[in-house]
Amino acid sequence: MLSDIEIAQDAEVWPIEKIADKIGLEKSEWQPYGWDKAKITLGHEHDNDPLGKLILVISINPTAAGEGKSTVTVGLGDALAKVDEKTMIALREPSLGPVMGMKGGATGGGYSQVIPMADINLHFTGDFHALTSAHNTLAALIDNSIYQGNPLNIDPRRVLWKRALDVNDRALRHATIGLGGPTSGVPREDGFDITVASELMAILTLSTDLMDMKQRIEKIVIADTYDRQPVTVADLGVAGALTTLLKDAIHPNLVQTLAHTPTLIHGGPFANIAQGTNSVQATKTALQLSNYVVTEAGFGADLGGEKFLDFKVPLLGKTPDTIVIVATVRALKMHGGLAKDELKQPNVAALQNGLANLGQHLSSMKRYGVPVVVAINQFTDDTAEELQTIKDYAAEFDVPAYVADVWGQGGAGARELAAGVIEATHQPSDFTPLYTPEDAAIDKLNKIAQTIYGAQGVELSEKAQKQLKRFAKYGWDKLPIIMAKTQYSLSDDPKKLGAPSDFTIHVREFVPKLGAGFLVAMTGSILTMPGLPKHPAANDIDIDEDGTIRGLF
Amino acid sequence: MLSDIEIAQDAEVWPIEKIADKIGLEKSEWQPYGWDKAKITLGHEHDNDPLGKLILVISINPTAAGEGKSTVTVGLGDALAKVDEKTMIALREPSLGPVMGMKGGATGGGYSQVIPMADINLHFTGDFHALTSAHNTLAALIDNSIYQGNPLNIDPRRVLWKRALDVNDRALRHATIGLGGPTSGVPREDGFDITVASELMAILTLSTDLMDMKQRIEKIVIADTYDRQPVTVADLGVAGALTTLLKDAIHPNLVQTLAHTPTLIHGGPFANIAQGTNSVQATKTALQLSNYVVTEAGFGADLGGEKFLDFKVPLLGKTPDTIVIVATVRALKMHGGLAKDELKQPNVAALQNGLANLGQHLSSMKRYGVPVVVAINQFTDDTAEELQTIKDYAAEFDVPAYVADVWGQGGAGARELAAGVIEATHQPSDFTPLYTPEDAAIDKLNKIAQTIYGAQGVELSEKAQKQLKRFAKYGWDKLPIIMAKTQYSLSDDPKKLGAPSDFTIHVREFVPKLGAGFLVAMTGSILTMPGLPKHPAANDIDIDEDGTIRGLF
Repeated sequence: MLSDIEIAQDAEVWPIEKIADKIGLEKSEWQPYGWDKAKITLGHEHDNDPLGKLILVISINPTAAGEGKSTVTVGLGDALAKVDEKTMIALREPSLGPVMGMKGGATGGGYSQVIPMADINLHFTGDFHALTSAHNTLAALIDNSIYQGNPLNIDPRRVLWKRALDVNDRALRHATIGLGGPTSGVPREDGFDITVASELMAILTLSTDLMDMKQRIEKIVIADTYDRQPVTVADLGVAGALTTLLKDAIHPNLVQTLAHTPTLIHGGPFANIAQGTNSVQATKTALQLSNYVVTEAGFGADLGGEKFLDFKVPLLGKTPDTIVIVATVRALKMHGGLAKDELKQPNVAALQNGLANLGQHLSSMKRYGVPVVVAINQFTDDTAEELQTIKDYAAEFDVPAYVADVWGQGGAGARELAAGVIEATHQPSDFTPLYTPEDAAIDKLNKIAQTIYGAQGVELSEKAQKQLKRFAKYGWDKLPIIMAKTQYSLSDDPKKLGAPSDFTIHVREFVPKLGAGFLVAMTGSILTMPGLPKHPAANDIDIDEDGTIRGLF
Repeated sequence: MLSDIEIAQDAEVWPIEKIADKIGLEKSEWQPYGWDKAKITLGHEHDNDPLGKLILVISINPTAAGEGKSTVTVGLGDALAKVDEKTMIALREPSLGPVMGMKGGATGGGYSQVIPMADINLHFTGDFHALTSAHNTLAALIDNSIYQGNPLNIDPRRVLWKRALDVNDRALRHATIGLGGPTSGVPREDGFDITVASELMAILTLSTDLMDMKQRIEKIVIADTYDRQPVTVADLGVAGALTTLLKDAIHPNLVQTLAHTPTLIHGGPFANIAQGTNSVQATKTALQLSNYVVTEAGFGADLGGEKFLDFKVPLLGKTPDTIVIVATVRALKMHGGLAKDELKQPNVAALQNGLANLGQHLSSMKRYGVPVVVAINQFTDDTAEELQTIKDYAAEFDVPAYVADVWGQGGAGARELAAGVIEATHQPSDFTPLYTPEDAAIDKLNKIAQTIYGAQGVELSEKAQKQLKRFAKYGWDKLPIIMAKTQYSLSDDPKKLGAPSDFTIHVREFVPKLGAGFLVAMTGSILTMPGLPKHPAANDIDIDEDGTIRGLF
């Protein structure tokens, strides 16, 4: 059996020019990056075109068994493209840090992949590097301002803007910097986040154009003064320089699937610490250029799904026409209590135990008033009985479920699913948001916790309560909420699988992101800088003299 | 008067495809990065072509007055291209950190510029970002190995591999990392260098192909064990992954001048801390594809010049056919004792005082047995008498000197210089290296200090002496020497302008770079991480809604 990277390396790649032609782009509307990647530099000229149908793919809570959400997204896109050539896929960009840590790409798998997969998983078109560069330039400018007489009266103990690298590096989580004497800065505590956790990443994925991006960057709160007034990038006067560093990163990237379906990959915030969806611009561009757009949101419906629907939809100005929830027999069996090495045996009882996880996501997504479909991503060991069990369960929610073999067959394995999705997009839809912008923070939090997670409610730490009081002075308490929560459970405890009940969500603290325009609620012990495992993937990656990469996935 | 960036933005840019055609590349031999940049993916198939003439441009010791070495290199290239269309220019890539600090580009100026200048000075084709990424991935893997049971017995107090960012950030020079408790690494002292100072940058500019790069990376010494044995990347087993991260960065970048002269820009080590020249591959590629190649080495003849001739030439397998030394009336007047605000007044006496600086470089470069030419880069305030004074002085060394107005006129301002250079390349040349590989380190150091700098000799600190003894065990004491020295003076004291005498060079410590294959001798107080000034350039940079950048240069 070929590995993902071997399948990708064997693929026939169309010149990106041919893909650009296919979606009707003029040469002035895109720029090549190699022969197989491009950036679309479209302005607002297509704004009034009729928009395509939007299909949002999410999943149950992920497990170690793997759900293959990206693989289903790609396979479904390829299947839809067979029905209507004007189909596009819109995904997030992978983060390089985890690529060197754990194996597992973000470009699909098997015969449902986006290519060139190695490039996309490595540096791609440099968007994340531009973000890292802008992020650390801002950090250096803050410390330089403190060092050069501190005209903004920044309290070095209250600098909020950390540094960032796209590397899994736990040793950089907490650091003391500015050491080495009077010519090397002012000593203070600091730390590094992974680049995808940067507020600049959130801004990149939300900005509608360069000026919108600049205004958002100006609003970033970087520190408090000694008398506890917020200091912003506008005060520092460097939003123009930072926007200049992101002038190319703002443009969506165009690539193709193995079946040559045009695919936009742009922006990559994680859904457990930020909004977890690809860029507003890329999704909008795809909607302008095609009849069907398949996009995904990170992790489960509780994280990426809720954020897409409550936060991205208002900015996008377009609601999804269908929501696809990806589930697998294997993952549901893990939710039902099995260990990873017990998944090969048929076990309908365990599956039935785990179905409650799917159930919670089905109810919470149906609540938004958009047609819902279940995609069962088939694995070799799945039995007919197990597959039917999931179908029957979904039927109890009046939701159709389709089995798809996208890993082994690509788009051909998702024909039924595609037909079901097309049917769903033509059903009546009445989008109902979960909360209104005017809701108090605590009400927003409770609605998310109760309706989406199935929790009793939320509990705020003393710090979080104090913060909300202080934020009210600046109106920050009215911002949309972005939950930072473990992806593995509906609760804030990664060990509680299935559909836990009788639990409360604990909000440890809030992080205001004024440029992105949201308030992050930190729950549990979510980390913003991952570490590497005992045997990092980097130890298995190698390259030949002809540039052939091995061991990447 | 238009600024550099305004001139660059007004320029007619040829599609890079047309430039690639001009130098005879097949479509399989290059890849586009936007419509105006490319990477040449040439293998060794042109290795046996007759090589072009190699012209090395260096300068006197730089001053605050500016010498315009890159501007002369570009103007000379454009002038030579008028005589022989098969002319190419080979430059280094600018570092982004300083771009946000002090104004001053690395792509020439006025009407002698390489374009697209903003892109080249910002992220270009991502080479430096790939280096930053690989550098910090290695750092994370080292700390992870220590954290995960430390199987290589690395002494955390003796980790030699620091972290790196392409940002001027003095606060990161010295840091304590691994703080925050047992799940966040092992606490230790660390620090960040600017990316150009990374050994990976040196390796990138020296590698002949991917396998050579991988072997060099394997040899990097990253730490000592508790029993003081060197630990290398090969021991860690991640050279394949790091080479994979540099698979695109290894290829030279193709751009054009305002006059459409094909220009390779690749690699960017500083000459005051590393070898200070562009990549061996780029220079070789240019020599294979053209009849005249104009390249430059960083800072004065003492730094970039010596390193090019003693270190790069053996790897290149080709000696320069002519050495051009750039001097200006203004800079020589500063070497003669004037302050920056006194340069507008004619002052032949001060100029004569400063000529000794040019004189030292003339003697030291003539010593290599290659024809030498002086290029006087003309500024508006220069008087005829001042220009003639330099010519007369050069004549005393039997060296022709030509006035060039490259900033104001581009290649048309360097016609005479080009004719003189062509004449020089046809003169007999008998390249004589300064030292032999077998020379002891102390002998190499003394030869460089005495012959090139005009010093009495070198003095080693106690630490440096101990290091040499220890290094002898591993044969490292026989490596070529790379001096880390201030660029402003022939001595190791940046305040001693002109041609100081009666001085000694103080070697503080050695840094072995086994992957690059050299031993760095640290003199004076050279920093490997710059800081930002009181008013950083970032505060003046801005971008319009149509993407027009202002204030970059």
